[in-house]
Amino acid sequence: MASSSSLTLSQALLARAISHQSTDHRLSLSTLSIPSFSGLKSTTPLASSTSSRRVLSTRVNHIHRRIRAAAVETLNATTETSLVEESVNTIRFLAIDAVEKANSGHPGLPMGCAPMGHILYDEIMRYNPKNPYWFNRDRFVLSAGHGCMLQYALLHLAGYDSVKEEDLKSFRQWGSKTPGHPENFETPGVEVTTGPLGQGIANAVGLALAEKHLAARYNKPDSEIVDHYTYVILGDGCNMEGISNEACSLAGHWGLGKLIAFYDDNHISIDGDTEIAFTESVDTRFEALGWHVIWVKNGNTGYDDIRAAIKEAKAVTDKPTLIKVTTTIGFGSPNKANSYSVHGSALGAKEVDATRKNLGWPYEPFHVPEVVKKHWSRHTPKGASLEAEWNAKFAEYEKKYPEEAAELKSIIKGELPAGWEKALPTYTPESPADATRNLSQQCLNALATVLPGLLGGSADLASSNMTLLKMFGDFQKETPEERNVRFGVREHGMGAISNGIALHSPGMIPYCATFFVFTDYMRGAIRLSALSEAGVIYVMTHDSIGLGEDGPTHQPIEHLASFRAMPNILMLRPADGNETAGAYKVAVLNRKRPSVLALSRQKLPNLAGSSIEGVEKGGYTISDNSSGNKPDVILIGTGSELEIAVKAAEELRKEGKAVRVVSLVSWELFDEQSDAYKESVLPAAVTARVSIEAGSTFGWEKIVGSKGKAIGIDRFGASAPAGKIYKEFGITSDAVVAAAKQLS
Amino acid sequence: MASSSSLTLSQALLARAISHQSTDHRLSLSTLSIPSFSGLKSTTPLASSTSSRRVLSTRVNHIHRRIRAAAVETLNATTETSLVEESVNTIRFLAIDAVEKANSGHPGLPMGCAPMGHILYDEIMRYNPKNPYWFNRDRFVLSAGHGCMLQYALLHLAGYDSVKEEDLKSFRQWGSKTPGHPENFETPGVEVTTGPLGQGIANAVGLALAEKHLAARYNKPDSEIVDHYTYVILGDGCNMEGISNEACSLAGHWGLGKLIAFYDDNHISIDGDTEIAFTESVDTRFEALGWHVIWVKNGNTGYDDIRAAIKEAKAVTDKPTLIKVTTTIGFGSPNKANSYSVHGSALGAKEVDATRKNLGWPYEPFHVPEVVKKHWSRHTPKGASLEAEWNAKFAEYEKKYPEEAAELKSIIKGELPAGWEKALPTYTPESPADATRNLSQQCLNALATVLPGLLGGSADLASSNMTLLKMFGDFQKETPEERNVRFGVREHGMGAISNGIALHSPGMIPYCATFFVFTDYMRGAIRLSALSEAGVIYVMTHDSIGLGEDGPTHQPIEHLASFRAMPNILMLRPADGNETAGAYKVAVLNRKRPSVLALSRQKLPNLAGSSIEGVEKGGYTISDNSSGNKPDVILIGTGSELEIAVKAAEELRKEGKAVRVVSLVSWELFDEQSDAYKESVLPAAVTARVSIEAGSTFGWEKIVGSKGKAIGIDRFGASAPAGKIYKEFGITSDAVVAAAKQLS
Repeated sequence: MASSSSLTLSQALLARAISHQSTDHRLSLSTLSIPSFSGLKSTTPLASSTSSRRVLSTRVNHIHRRIRAAAVETLNATTETSLVEESVNTIRFLAIDAVEKANSGHPGLPMGCAPMGHILYDEIMRYNPKNPYWFNRDRFVLSAGHGCMLQYALLHLAGYDSVKEEDLKSFRQWGSKTPGHPENFETPGVEVTTGPLGQGIANAVGLALAEKHLAARYNKPDSEIVDHYTYVILGDGCNMEGISNEACSLAGHWGLGKLIAFYDDNHISIDGDTEIAFTESVDTRFEALGWHVIWVKNGNTGYDDIRAAIKEAKAVTDKPTLIKVTTTIGFGSPNKANSYSVHGSALGAKEVDATRKNLGWPYEPFHVPEVVKKHWSRHTPKGASLEAEWNAKFAEYEKKYPEEAAELKSIIKGELPAGWEKALPTYTPESPADATRNLSQQCLNALATVLPGLLGGSADLASSNMTLLKMFGDFQKETPEERNVRFGVREHGMGAISNGIALHSPGMIPYCATFFVFTDYMRGAIRLSALSEAGVIYVMTHDSIGLGEDGPTHQPIEHLASFRAMPNILMLRPADGNETAGAYKVAVLNRKRPSVLALSRQKLPNLAGSSIEGVEKGGYTISDNSSGNKPDVILIGTGSELEIAVKAAEELRKEGKAVRVVSLVSWELFDEQSDAYKESVLPAAVTARVSIEAGSTFGWEKIVGSKGKAIGIDRFGASAPAGKIYKEFGITSDAVVAAAKQLS
Repeated sequence: MASSSSLTLSQALLARAISHQSTDHRLSLSTLSIPSFSGLKSTTPLASSTSSRRVLSTRVNHIHRRIRAAAVETLNATTETSLVEESVNTIRFLAIDAVEKANSGHPGLPMGCAPMGHILYDEIMRYNPKNPYWFNRDRFVLSAGHGCMLQYALLHLAGYDSVKEEDLKSFRQWGSKTPGHPENFETPGVEVTTGPLGQGIANAVGLALAEKHLAARYNKPDSEIVDHYTYVILGDGCNMEGISNEACSLAGHWGLGKLIAFYDDNHISIDGDTEIAFTESVDTRFEALGWHVIWVKNGNTGYDDIRAAIKEAKAVTDKPTLIKVTTTIGFGSPNKANSYSVHGSALGAKEVDATRKNLGWPYEPFHVPEVVKKHWSRHTPKGASLEAEWNAKFAEYEKKYPEEAAELKSIIKGELPAGWEKALPTYTPESPADATRNLSQQCLNALATVLPGLLGGSADLASSNMTLLKMFGDFQKETPEERNVRFGVREHGMGAISNGIALHSPGMIPYCATFFVFTDYMRGAIRLSALSEAGVIYVMTHDSIGLGEDGPTHQPIEHLASFRAMPNILMLRPADGNETAGAYKVAVLNRKRPSVLALSRQKLPNLAGSSIEGVEKGGYTISDNSSGNKPDVILIGTGSELEIAVKAAEELRKEGKAVRVVSLVSWELFDEQSDAYKESVLPAAVTARVSIEAGSTFGWEKIVGSKGKAIGIDRFGASAPAGKIYKEFGITSDAVVAAAKQLS
């Protein structure tokens, strides 16, 4: 049978809708005994075995199908089915063989999703395998990251140099390009790092947001210079995670029409049939979120249905599309398909053999049949020509719109404009006291004028986090060129969307904001910023008991320590205006390391001695009346408590002490300084050290040593005016003075 | 107008559905030009101004209304409307006045939700104000916790001793019973701690689960001894958070018919109109999740509609119900109602006056009119009699079913059966090596036989976390008496549901499980376990790079440190069988402090010297060949690395060194020991200390001191077989030996 179909799209849909046969017994479709719509009379009796969720989803789909049927398109002929099947089975067996060799991994998803994977990478997506970073490529995200062998197989067939045969053979081994989950920092061609479920679909929302935003800013009536799709495969697990609902609600709200997500509806998760924990109607939920939803009932062999669904999805330009593709996990395995046993373990030699027989696959492990190799080989020249065409288009664009082209180029290349940092404000001790959250807003607004890729927003706390860019409006469905993003109360989705934006192009600099304590809601995404080298700027205000009356649910205690312990992330707690500016300088420069800025709600004075340069070193002396690098005592503070250290120093100096005050605004940056520099700030010989920070003392022993004293808070906070809590908790200059006297 | 209505429920609903007038212009309802259903012909033209989300939600509601209309009930007469309004305004002004006096807080929600609050506490809920812990009380959760003055006002009117007039006057002040968000550990009558959005609705799912479970286990055909409802008020913010979707998907799946949630649909969040970030159809989404959904269009004055909705919700016993109540935030404030300015700030003296005039409230601040006081005063005797009736019922029950009664009593009182800890398994060095996740399963299964309140499960990793209780089936809609809970891939919801279970009754001991790294997904809920003193047991397996090939996305690094820094939580990392049993002993005993158990995927030997008693002290010597408390070197390990420390000690002893090996299984417990004990384990004079732990070294300076050496991992992990990663990362006994030699 030839793969091309003469059915029109509407006919194809109708055929599916009225079909009474299905490859999966669970999915048999029945019309319902509810009133029929618009004269279309149903004659089929209600199938009593149909579960209620199917009923609901079917009913709603039915309504939508009828509405959609207005758009009639004819399917185009594509590759011969036999070749497609050969290619699809190649993908399946590359996955099977790699997992088998590693004796570790997840064969089930690649076996079930190979058809949609093939169609995406062979027929639909525009990319250049020899330049995985070509700006205008279509993005693909495997949100169900455990199925990474699907993506590795596809990258291999498509001609990416990152995944050669030897890479497939070293799947999940030390130093390989094919780790156990997709990692963008290891494997060119992988856009984002997935595995933790739900992150990928949220990243994809960020990628699609970036595309829509850049297209709105840079496309011209005569030149669509930004124009790509974002494709995702997500599974049941992704759909259960709250983060995906958050991100998908925003995707619907923003009308991200070029986001096309395939839901691998295989009904199996690690604990077995999804019926034990997941009986909601995913279709209806996505419709509620404002998505266009299509159901491909036979994802195992229904190539034309998949193609038709993609075509339909592309035709819907004002909504993201969810294509629910019903597949069989481990398709082809005679004894393990459609069971959890094929989800996350090697099939075992015997079952591999049985699967080879079952699918008629006579080849040795890792073999790619010549016909398949030849077929896929066209992507190298095709990709080169796609990029060349785009380059030519860009050259034209550059001639006509030199300013826009230069700006877009800087976003594509990630080059910061010369002297950008001069835009940052500076302050003197005479500058009025202010909350660092307000100073942060001054920095953001200053930077937005010089950094074309800076955009972001808050999780419904813009007016508390002080994150609005005053010269821009809101990024919305109808105003995607604007730069204030309204995330709603969706911290986790916000973080993951920001990761997607950051990883779209090196010059995109997303920031996102909430109360510092609510990093707890988005820690999964923040950790992935750190791991996947996404330079997101986390603007975290209300950073201590200093927020006062909202009480312990809102007062961070352990959060500074918890980020100081996390690899590849900068925890910055600036004390005043200059330090806030310094924190932004560091955050912008660190494009492969995210930054968390802890900012105060309460006003803080601008301190003598604070500086941007000091922040860049992580820790530095802001005042000292000692000589010979031998103070009697060193007082160390961060953020809002640096002021307290300064006051205590003044007291102690009045009493004749030689006192140094050190701002330890970023432990990570200080760690990276030379030993000589560190000794110049914290000389080993001076063991009389007192630290003060309105947070957990956990970790401070490293700084104050076993003879020093760390003043902090090792309990939960309290609801009261901030000054009262500081006093009751002993976060006072009196306490610092007392401790210093005891030690020196 | 009298408040009682002669409309039948179906008439009332229909009247609402066809109404073309609404108090809120945004909510004018229009029938649609889509085909009409079952012969009901629409003649009203499509209102073009109706937003698409209203269209969708209306359409779906329309379908459901038609279906629901079958259940016809007659509304009962209740309190006179004038008195209701006086009471509702009392609630509003108590909130307004308390926020005004504190000059801090959130008046908007209490002003909008006062009608539903009044009806719940005055007409619907069964409770005893003089015994807030009466077991069979209805539970109420204010998921939108910032509106806590609503709850404080209600508790005050209802006669709870925890909220006297002076407590209202000290709202948000140091030491008061009325903190800035509801805190169960501060205010009897508050069930759970809310404020972080979305947690409360998930807690409520846990409370309703506990009720359904206990009812299924202990109710008898002749005695419904467990029988209460769980009511929630949640807002737009809660509904945006992913955690609420997770928990509500489960509530639908489990068919928690006695969970009734009021969605305060006021269209305003902190950043302004929810249109800027929240345009999904909440109604449709909840229907997709398997909930019964009712819309009360006038929540400001539609008392009968609210009553009818509750009645309808109670009639639907197989589904939870969402009552969407459209309200005006800050109702009554002439200049601030329906705007974000009334959400989180005091109204200000001028607007308070204007509101008093507008609502006809001549009283001084904090005044409760006599008629209102008198009306509410009946709840004290009524509550006493409700509890007395139940006590009598329980006495009857106890006579007939002494065994069940004794068990239920132990759950109600939180008394552990005498000798329960003897059920815990013990091990010798001859016991076969095993992963602590497997040993954990042995403990769980042993404990389940002696602890009637133990129940729990995993976020779709039961077979990896090893959490199944083998003698029980799955807690499901039709089998709620079972104890294995299937949470699906919903970590955050799982944690918050577990908090709800733990806080339902002192004897409920929920455990929940996922990979340790995914505590990042549920940290918001875990922190609330710690803060709200919910003794949840977190069974966290795959606790290090030892999980191997899944790679850095799945390998925790900073997680041990991040929980050690968190107040009121026990971080336990057992090394073998005895220590796993010890960890469970500690976890079960700590009913007001949650425990996180970090458990290995890989096999570990049972070590000589390990013990349950040792674990109870947090840190202890497991082997030592020194004398006089003066070892040459102390090696300190936790969990899977304790074995490495033991091996290194053997090497060093061969070379003549006096070596002590210390297991530091729980830093928190060790910290609580006497100085003498601590000195006996880690003598101050011995500065040659080497620690080894496959995680961040952050914080270890406290243990090893500035002269010691902490061996750990301060980078992200890698995808490879576990042994290879350990070697490459230098987490080896060779490294310990080398460090020890350098130091001693």
